[in-house]
Order: sequence, then structure tokens, then C-alpha cells
Amino acid sequence: MQIMSSFIEMDTDKGIALHDLMQGIRQAIADSGIQNGFVSVTAQHTTTAIAINEDEPRLTEDVKAFLKRLISADDRYLHNDIALRNCPPDEPENAHSHLAAMLLGSSEVIPLAEGQLVLGQYQSVMLYELDGPRRRKVNVQVYGV
Amino acid sequence: MQIMSSFIEMDTDKGIALHDLMQGIRQAIADSGIQNGFVSVTAQHTTTAIAINEDEPRLTEDVKAFLKRLISADDRYLHNDIALRNCPPDEPENAHSHLAAMLLGSSEVIPLAEGQLVLGQYQSVMLYELDGPRRRKVNVQVYGV
Amino acid sequence: MQIMSSFIEMDTDKGIALHDLMQGIRQAIADSGIQNGFVSVTAQHTTTAIAINEDEPRLTEDVKAFLKRLISADDRYLHNDIALRNCPPDEPENAHSHLAAMLLGSSEVIPLAEGQLVLGQYQSVMLYELDGPRRRKVNVQVYGV
Repeated sequence: MQIMSSFIEMDTDKGIALHDLMQGIRQAIADSGIQNGFVSVTAQHTTTAIAINEDEPRLTEDVKAFLKRLISADDRYLHNDIALRNCPPDEPENAHSHLAAMLLGSSEVIPLAEGQLVLGQYQSVMLYELDGPRRRKVNVQVYGV
Repeated sequence: MQIMSSFIEMDTDKGIALHDLMQGIRQAIADSGIQNGFVSVTAQHTTTAIAINEDEPRLTEDVKAFLKRLISADDRYLHNDIALRNCPPDEPENAHSHLAAMLLGSSEVIPLAEGQLVLGQYQSVMLYELDGPRRRKVNVQVYGV
Repeated sequence: MQIMSSFIEMDTDKGIALHDLMQGIRQAIADSGIQNGFVSVTAQHTTTAIAINEDEPRLTEDVKAFLKRLISADDRYLHNDIALRNCPPDEPENAHSHLAAMLLGSSEVIPLAEGQLVLGQYQSVMLYELDGPRRRKVNVQVYGV
């Protein structure tokens, strides 16, 4: 039984952006030498999320438009009163980003069999940047034998 | 330490439909002989999701109505311009189904103790079909001793 | 390879309430003696959820207001016709709580390295009470070596 923990680091795009993690996850699996077990993918920030979906450019635009409609950045949020919080004055006004991260979730678990992720043809594990651009980290842990 | 990976396959109902996975998951646990550890349940499609909720017929109708209100199938989605995408011409117009899958999530992890799933009285792990009817697969992996 | 399963129990606050689980999770890790592996945190109720976000008091108020706007408690829900269901007559009218739990998700997986949770500076694992006040249980399972 082995455990291999690693990070994918990246510079994300502006606002809401989807970043396909499949290449990095497959590299982590190859580096680990683990053939059977599972992989956990866990976001390391409160304004990013991890979800599995189709990496199709037109769908990505639909996702951005939908999230902006569902959670308006312009609504009144108490978290955006930066001066009233115990935080640096240049903290971003990003309550809507936190709310999107909460709905999308911070982790997914994917089975691993014979060295391959057990996923359907169109499934990609993706980082959802919800308050970019920023330098971001995602933990990828491979578990098994 | 053992790992047992299996699939539940099923024909789903039309549109949005909830399919209780508990019988199939319990069978996978019994087949594995594993008593203590955990079970991961991972959807294998981009227009299905895995979530845990009460399997109550009237609540199921509320879930369907709520998802239809929250994510209208009739909104304008770029993903639904099939002719502009690199895909077969009979591809379904299902951007709303992808958006629902993104919000609901593709995996859940359930602890296993003394051969039993560690869940509350009313909790059922369910497949959310979001673009049925189709033939669908769910991965169930049992981990432990 | 070790598995340690335990529960955090608590009395939650009224309506929607967020309860930080970090102290209880860290205690479970310390009690287990496990240094490297992962932790699964799984809600044990259909009207609670587990999510990771910033534990900031003003954001917590934004979360409550957002969930109330997104999923109105006053809409018409079939699940709230208690007399038409096979359940005790004092069952709460809480369809909206189930819908919120479905969107937020019931479990998260967090890596564990050198005895520490692998999370970003502002990430707290939290129980989302969606129909409080109640006595609630959360399963925390520590896996590894």
C-alpha cells in the first residue's frame, strides 16, 4: 500500500475560468507507479473548486454565464465590506466567488484501475477558478498498490 | 488491505430521474468481503451526478421541479449549437444537464464499519440522471480490510 | 495501514448555521496517530451538508442569505404535505433543507501529510446545518500510516 501526494500549480485566467487537470493527474499517477486504488483531487483555496465535467469550449462559456447569473457579483454581501473585517485593505471583494466554491465543492475522488482513471469518455477533472487570475495549487493524492 | 472495484449499470428514466444505489452498493460490499474501510461512488458520465439524500417519492418530485427552475433547459446555451461543435449531428442539446451535474457533484465517499455503510437512517446514495433515458454506469469501489 | 473512524457530535443552531469542524477533525487525527493518508468527512443526515470554505463571520451571514434566496422555504413542495406521507405527523416541513443539502454535498476528502491536513490557509471544513436546531453527527475517518 502506497501513498503519493503531490501538487499541481498553475496561473489561472481572469474571473471565472476552467482549467483541465487531466494531464497533471495522469503525470502524478505515472510518477507514483501505483496501478490500482484511487486518486483524490482537493482544491487548496476557498475561491476555487474541483468538479468533473466535459472540457468543451462552448460549454465552458455556458458555465461562466450560468454561474454569473446564479450568483451575482453585484449583490450586497457583508463579506465585501473589507474595512469592517480583520484583513488587509487590499483584500478582493469576492463573496460571490466563495458562494460558487461552496456549491461546486472542493474535492472529488476518482478510482484507479490498471493505471487508468476510471472515468467516462467525456469526463475531465477540472479546477474552477472563481476569482482569477491567481497562482493556485491543487493537491493530487494517489493511493493504492 | 483490499481494493474491490465494480460497476452498477442501469437503464435510467426520462429527463431528470433519481435512482437509489443502496442495493447495488450493499451487494458490492458483500461481494468484497471487506468489513472496515470506505466506499467511493463515482459517476461515469458528464450528465449524471452522485448525491446523498432521502429517497422519498414526493421529495423526488420536488428535486425535479427545483432543478428545472434553477437551470432552465430553454435558456440560450452555446453548447447546444450542435452544428458549430466537433461532434456527431445527433448529439443531444443538454447544456442544462451538464450544469446540473456540475452543481451536484460526481462522487461521494461513505465510511464502512463492521460491514455496514456509516450513514444516517434516511440517507440513500443516489444516481441523479439529468438527461435520460440512457444506459448508465456508476463505479463503486470498496477499500479496506 | 490503519483506519480510525470516529464521530463529531454537536447541538446546532437555528435554521441555517455553519459549524467549523476543524478542531474535532484535528483531534481525530491526533487520536489516530496516523501521519500520512487522508481524512473523509461525511454528514450523517439528509438536511446537513459538508463543505470547505472560509470561516469568516460576515461571509457566514452571506451564505445564509444566499441559500434562503436560492431555495425559498415558502415555495410549494410536495415533501411538505406531511399528512400525505408515511411519516410521523410532527415531521418538519423541510423540503428546502433537503434541496440545499443536495447542492452542497455530503462528503469531502482531505489529504493528510506529516500529521497535518493539506488545506490552504483560509480553508475550514464545515458542517452546514440546514434545518436546525438539532443534535447532529458527522463521521470523521482517518486513513493511512
